[in-house]
Amino acid sequence: MKIVQCVPNISEGRNLEKIKKIIEPLQNQNGFKLISYEPDKDYNRTVITLIGDPESMIIPLISFFERAKDLIDMNQHSGQHPRMGAVDVVPFIPIQNISIEECINYAKSLAEHVSFMYNIPVFLYAKAAQTKDREQLPDIRKGEFEGMKEKIQDPTWKPDYGQAKIHPTFGVVAIGARLPLIAYNIDLDTNDEKVASSIAKAIRKSSGGFQYIQAGPAYLQERDHVQVTMNILDYKKNPLYRIIETVKMEAKRYGVHVTSSEVVGLIPEDCITDSLRYYFAVEGHKLPKDITMDQICQYAIEILKFRDFDIKKIIEANL
Amino acid sequence: MKIVQCVPNISEGRNLEKIKKIIEPLQNQNGFKLISYEPDKDYNRTVITLIGDPESMIIPLISFFERAKDLIDMNQHSGQHPRMGAVDVVPFIPIQNISIEECINYAKSLAEHVSFMYNIPVFLYAKAAQTKDREQLPDIRKGEFEGMKEKIQDPTWKPDYGQAKIHPTFGVVAIGARLPLIAYNIDLDTNDEKVASSIAKAIRKSSGGFQYIQAGPAYLQERDHVQVTMNILDYKKNPLYRIIETVKMEAKRYGVHVTSSEVVGLIPEDCITDSLRYYFAVEGHKLPKDITMDQICQYAIEILKFRDFDIKKIIEANL
Repeated sequence: MKIVQCVPNISEGRNLEKIKKIIEPLQNQNGFKLISYEPDKDYNRTVITLIGDPESMIIPLISFFERAKDLIDMNQHSGQHPRMGAVDVVPFIPIQNISIEECINYAKSLAEHVSFMYNIPVFLYAKAAQTKDREQLPDIRKGEFEGMKEKIQDPTWKPDYGQAKIHPTFGVVAIGARLPLIAYNIDLDTNDEKVASSIAKAIRKSSGGFQYIQAGPAYLQERDHVQVTMNILDYKKNPLYRIIETVKMEAKRYGVHVTSSEVVGLIPEDCITDSLRYYFAVEGHKLPKDITMDQICQYAIEILKFRDFDIKKIIEANL
Repeated sequence: MKIVQCVPNISEGRNLEKIKKIIEPLQNQNGFKLISYEPDKDYNRTVITLIGDPESMIIPLISFFERAKDLIDMNQHSGQHPRMGAVDVVPFIPIQNISIEECINYAKSLAEHVSFMYNIPVFLYAKAAQTKDREQLPDIRKGEFEGMKEKIQDPTWKPDYGQAKIHPTFGVVAIGARLPLIAYNIDLDTNDEKVASSIAKAIRKSSGGFQYIQAGPAYLQERDHVQVTMNILDYKKNPLYRIIETVKMEAKRYGVHVTSSEVVGLIPEDCITDSLRYYFAVEGHKLPKDITMDQICQYAIEILKFRDFDIKKIIEANL
């Protein structure tokens, strides 16, 4: 059976009633599971995770788009996270028995339907991008919802599907395919955003840091501290432990400490164990070969300081 | 007055008599100074540093090429460092009152002369490169002296000056212009090259590490330990302290420590002070504003653990 992970992000993270209505078409379907939805009040955004057969996902995803269109008005939206559409981004990620090329085809199929049915302009991004300058989501999203009205008229930014005109309340969406990515945030015991910003610059590719890290600062209103929020685009080449330790090292000059960290969405098992292996080695030990999924989860909480984490956030625990 | 740094590297690091004969044309000249020459037995390579007016350097450099051609036979050369010519590389680096474009022109002038006078094929590299695939020296040098005989016949690797045929004893040379670069090596208390190799992979751009780091492992026969040898292409974006601390962090998993480090050639003053500022901040202090050049040198030795270092290796101390 072909398994993908599909992770739509919607621009609503505060009104739980609306969120539930929007995700309803994705619940209790044959062929795939709605693994989680994680509303974030500060970001005013919800990350939704589906796992299963991509073929079965397309029609429910179209209904989900319709609900997001009807219930979210981007003109009213504010939040800490950059965004350009009611459904902001939809990546298809190969997990088992499926190639990235097949994922690209599912992305195109969904794009065609939502642009045709609801007049939503679609940009194909990441591995589905048709041009080099659409590979990086932040490049497409630059200007955000507010700037997109003008940007989309620039021939360079003509959408891949739909007219060169934003949907008045929905905005635009990026749909694509990519390899597994870790959305990971490291919490700092300060509320000085400048500290998080300077640390983010040290680690992210765009300012000279690690090749597969996109990072920025974020202030969490509810918890009253800042975090370095990041995407890890290749967790094999930029393992978690290296990022955590580099963040600790940079934080030292400000007298700031790492208190905890959080994985948004799911994480592959080997992403955790590769980093546990480092901390075990530092202590002169080896990670046991017969380690159970429960133990991995426990160590991730204790050693990598994952907060709000449980075994269901490990991809392999859901298969 | 226009000031450049020019750093020819020759493929002889063992026979001091030969080295002295080769650099003789560069000594006691008007308009520039021979700041240092640093033979390395393990690398079998000498890094020569000139500072001053580039106009005055060209004719002495041509004589220096002639001596290297007469005294070095690349067919007999072996050493730890990759190389393709008797003079392996000559970069011109803008220091004061001179643009990178002017440096490119001096590089071209020298290239034209040595190719014409001695039948030495020249590749223009770095900022002087005529094509994208000649920007990185390692790409040009791949295959080294031994492989160049064939490589140079490939139309892609036609030299920028001279015939598509290596000089039988000299080989080929890369001449170019670039911004200041730090050649920096970090010593480890192990002789296991695999450890240095794995740490190099963690920090270098080509395998996912920091954007401006080229790095590899090297075993130092004389001192019987390995080091992570690197070029820092932009020391403002990838400061020394960040690299040192990341190397320490990676070394930990092997029970290995950083014992010292070395700067090959010269280093700008602010490259040292930017990193001292980090270590001062970690201790809750500020770097004194009225710090002297002597104190900077002393702290570099104590805190950054520079070995074989003295004030003359700071560029500004030579102006």
